[in-house]
Amino acid sequence: MTEPGALMAAEILEQPDAWARFLDQGLGAVERAARRVADYGPRHVLFAARGTSDHAALYGAYLFETLLGVPAGLLSPSALTVYGARPDYAGTLVVGVSQSGGSPDLVRSLAVASERGALTLAVTNAPGSPLAQAAHEHIDVLAGPERAVAATKSYTAQLLALHALVAELRGGADQASRALPELAQRLLGSLEGPVGQVAERYRFAPRVVTVGRGYCYPTAREAALKLMETSYLFALSFSAADLLHGPLAAVDASTPALLVAPEGKGGSAAMSVLPQLQDKKADVFCVGSAEHVHAAGSGVVLPGPVPEELSPLLEILPAQTLALRLALLRGENPDAPRGLSKITKTL
Amino acid sequence: MTEPGALMAAEILEQPDAWARFLDQGLGAVERAARRVADYGPRHVLFAARGTSDHAALYGAYLFETLLGVPAGLLSPSALTVYGARPDYAGTLVVGVSQSGGSPDLVRSLAVASERGALTLAVTNAPGSPLAQAAHEHIDVLAGPERAVAATKSYTAQLLALHALVAELRGGADQASRALPELAQRLLGSLEGPVGQVAERYRFAPRVVTVGRGYCYPTAREAALKLMETSYLFALSFSAADLLHGPLAAVDASTPALLVAPEGKGGSAAMSVLPQLQDKKADVFCVGSAEHVHAAGSGVVLPGPVPEELSPLLEILPAQTLALRLALLRGENPDAPRGLSKITKTL
Repeated sequence: MTEPGALMAAEILEQPDAWARFLDQGLGAVERAARRVADYGPRHVLFAARGTSDHAALYGAYLFETLLGVPAGLLSPSALTVYGARPDYAGTLVVGVSQSGGSPDLVRSLAVASERGALTLAVTNAPGSPLAQAAHEHIDVLAGPERAVAATKSYTAQLLALHALVAELRGGADQASRALPELAQRLLGSLEGPVGQVAERYRFAPRVVTVGRGYCYPTAREAALKLMETSYLFALSFSAADLLHGPLAAVDASTPALLVAPEGKGGSAAMSVLPQLQDKKADVFCVGSAEHVHAAGSGVVLPGPVPEELSPLLEILPAQTLALRLALLRGENPDAPRGLSKITKTL
Repeated sequence: MTEPGALMAAEILEQPDAWARFLDQGLGAVERAARRVADYGPRHVLFAARGTSDHAALYGAYLFETLLGVPAGLLSPSALTVYGARPDYAGTLVVGVSQSGGSPDLVRSLAVASERGALTLAVTNAPGSPLAQAAHEHIDVLAGPERAVAATKSYTAQLLALHALVAELRGGADQASRALPELAQRLLGSLEGPVGQVAERYRFAPRVVTVGRGYCYPTAREAALKLMETSYLFALSFSAADLLHGPLAAVDASTPALLVAPEGKGGSAAMSVLPQLQDKKADVFCVGSAEHVHAAGSGVVLPGPVPEELSPLLEILPAQTLALRLALLRGENPDAPRGLSKITKTL
């Protein structure tokens, strides 16, 4: 037995090394997959994923749409597995994203997609897994064994792998990623104070909202899931656009708001809801640029510069650390949340 | 000034008449749109929507994938509007769904999609709206003026219109829809007792989870939004598959769970999480088949029979009524939730 939270704490800190390992050893598989994808010439891309990996998938969809101009979205596995739909997937790249590669509905979805004409790619942390075997191509994110139930390093390694794939498809050398391990190291070293304080402040919070837009929206989603699964906090995540369509009504002075707002277009768009959050007297904690954190009045400034599309790898680090600290303050063991297991076998 | 909740109550009860009107007067536009779609022959379908309409869009995506075998998903407007992405939409049908047809980011998304080769269709409750004007084809859902901020009749009218479109594309006469107004009338007449009781029971609930899968998952999403925007309850909605990937940890004895489980494959799949919810001591309220309500121990039985793909029109009625009753019990005015306006102009 380890100390409560020891596994999650170690895995959070391992992220810079995991990324460096992927950039050192993982790019061969990326190049191979990219060649196959380029030969296939997808008309559009669909991602299949669950839980944390669903947020990496959402990030991947933004990359394909925004940087490659290929329409992209998320597939509903239940259409294929529950209803037995057999859509025509000719011209479609279907990407399965999963830490364990073990969820039967994803394996089945990729198998069906392949039968129906898709090119399939698995992005996992488990090269021998059923999902990796079922796909035409596989990228191993090389995060190393992840033992805490709450996924941390496997998530950011998925983001890095998806970014590397899109960078390879764009044909450019992906120099910007090389700076990430050191920036992450610096960021992780600076979190103790500010995140410790905000964890104290949220000790008795009954709920939280998280907000982002564009590239930082998957971060808001993933931050909410981390808080939910480790601290049992009811955490709602919204795109800044959707927040104004109803959910804002539920925000009040007893609601902390985690606003993800890095430098760039998505972060600026996310910031557009700050006046409404302040008007509702929400307690706003910003993870983002110095300017945005200053405007919000509280938060963590991200190191940089990094291109906006790489910022999600850094943005999630304070949120992971907050989930860990808050769970410990609340007397919970974030390494083994009640009622969850590491590999979820959805049929 | 009307009594608090009078608008929402009236609009909930108007739904059977609104559906009958659409089936009487709205199908000409559906036939015209279907001919255009069939001529275009989309390789895949993307929906663009926000808030309540996003849940109708999700339903539409299931219909296209499951009944027509056309891959379908939800578009991220921010990729187009925030980042200026210009994906190649040749062969893509892009469907904008909106009550008001007035949200600038949806209008812009459809305009960009059209420039980039898509066939565009608007489904709105406002034939003179910018979205209706921007699209190649328009289907008016004919729900009549909706004055309560929380959308009710415009939502179910959107579901009916999307179903009618897919039925027309399948070439069959859509007889099953004809039975809906009378079934809804019967259901609405039966809700006072059971929904009144559950509203009392949830009077002080701090939060709620809603669960569905497949066709009934959009209902779970929409039920959560109604509860949030009228009763300020923190409401989290999950596909039964995703619930097990983390969020289940946040469920406990103080968490009511609204389980949407009609007869059919999706409802049965949703029921698979009942043991876990019960194990967590959640208070389960089921909207679904007699068998599922009996197993859950509490709930509202839906009238029938209706094909599973039409069941969402009925499933949402008890949830709308619960949102209304609970808001009134809590001293809120569901017709005019704090901080919201009827037309949300997201840029």
